[in-house]
Order: sequence, then C-alpha cells, then structure tokens
Amino acid sequence: MGSGRVALVNAHDDNLEANVFARACGSREALQNVTGRWGALALAALAEGTFRFNELRRRVDGVSERMLAQTLQSLERDGLVVRTVVQAIPPRVEYSLTPLGVRAAESLVALIEVLESGLGDIVAARDAYDEQRNVS
Amino acid sequence: MGSGRVALVNAHDDNLEANVFARACGSREALQNVTGRWGALALAALAEGTFRFNELRRRVDGVSERMLAQTLQSLERDGLVVRTVVQAIPPRVEYSLTPLGVRAAESLVALIEVLESGLGDIVAARDAYDEQRNVS
Repeated sequence: MGSGRVALVNAHDDNLEANVFARACGSREALQNVTGRWGALALAALAEGTFRFNELRRRVDGVSERMLAQTLQSLERDGLVVRTVVQAIPPRVEYSLTPLGVRAAESLVALIEVLESGLGDIVAARDAYDEQRNVS
Repeated sequence: MGSGRVALVNAHDDNLEANVFARACGSREALQNVTGRWGALALAALAEGTFRFNELRRRVDGVSERMLAQTLQSLERDGLVVRTVVQAIPPRVEYSLTPLGVRAAESLVALIEVLESGLGDIVAARDAYDEQRNVS
C-alpha cells in the first residue's frame, strides 16, 4: 500500500502515510463516517451480528429511517458494512460488517464501554462544570 | 455507581445500566462529544501530550478557532479534558487529558489506526461502490 498512498494525501502534507489529522486524507473522511452522529451506533450495533434494516433502526434508538439509510450507505461505500439481498419470498436485505468493519467496531465498542462505565464520573464532571459557570 | 445510574437513563428503558443505544442516556451525549466532527481528533491529539490552544489548532488541521474552543469546552464539561492556567508571564492555558480522557483516547487512537492502516481497502471500496452506481 506504500506508494499508492501518495495520491491519497494532501500534497501539502510532508507525511506520505495515511494521516487522519490531515484534512485532505481519505482516512479522515472514513473517521467522520464511522464516528458521525449515527455511524458509531450503527457500527457498534452491527458488532453484535447481522441486522435487517428495521431491526437496526429499533436498536439505534432515535434514528430516522432516512438518517439510518444514509449512514449505512456511507459505511457500505467505505467498505465497512456489507448489504446483502437474501433471495427469499419476499426477498430481504441484511446488513453486516466486513473484516475491516469488525476491527473498527471493536475499537468503537471499547470506546463505548469506557464512556458507559465512566458515566458516573461524566455526570459528576458536568454538574461541577455547570455549577462553576452559574456561580461565577 | 449502581443505584446512582437509575436517574441517568431514560425512564422508558428497562435497562438501568448506562446504555449508549438509549437516546436519553447521558453516555450517548458523551459519545457524540467524543466522536463529533472535531472531538475525536482533539482527543487523539491530546493522547500525544499537553497542548496549548494554538498548538492544538495546528495539529488538528482545518479546525476553526471557534469550533476548537467549543469542542474543548464539551470535552472539559464531560470530564475528559482539563484546562489549566499556568501562572507565568504571560499566563498560558494548557489542555490535557483526565484519566478517563486517557482511556477514551486510547480506544479512539486504536480506531484511527484501524482506519489509517485500512485506507487502501477503504479507497478501493469507494471506487468500486461509485463505479457500480455510475454503471447501473
């Protein structure tokens, strides 16, 4: 992948490796898709297995049909999610992770676990922050 | 933290543990802040050490002053980032991670590494996706 990278990064960047900090690097767009408003939740849900569209919509509480469809399209385009049409009567569409999607989802699930297990600290920090702002 | 959780989650949720999939759970807001447009990059940069505001702005290529300030405020409010005023002449402001911020950043950096190392696959997937759309 080494020399192929050159074309993928900003010409202004001295570093020819993929670099998410460089605004023109394709890895940054992939990060935005993976971590966008619904991308992180959709990927983390798919880490649990294969879902049909409406199952996934129920799992990701609060997402609209349109936003979930857009999110899945971005993740499919980036090669993280596979959309499979299962030949049945009626045919059904299923979503699952690619091997790269599995690896990305593993890190996301680890991140979610840090935040869920730290929620007590997070809420306490928010209270302290808001109180200080109200006092001063 | 067990019983304290009850108040933090949606009353409609049967699960009293923190659950990022529930729209009213505070952990979802924290996930949005951590993975928002600039939050992920700011946290990943701070995983490298302490930064002054303008250093951080240079590191996170493309972020505006206003967006970086908002991002840091959200992360500070969630207890992931600490803002320290260093008494010097002139005084300076430094940003660093809390212990919880370090843990969150570790998972984010792992995610970024997956995407950076997989960029060749991602670009190939995008090309294939776009080609298929143009043909059909």
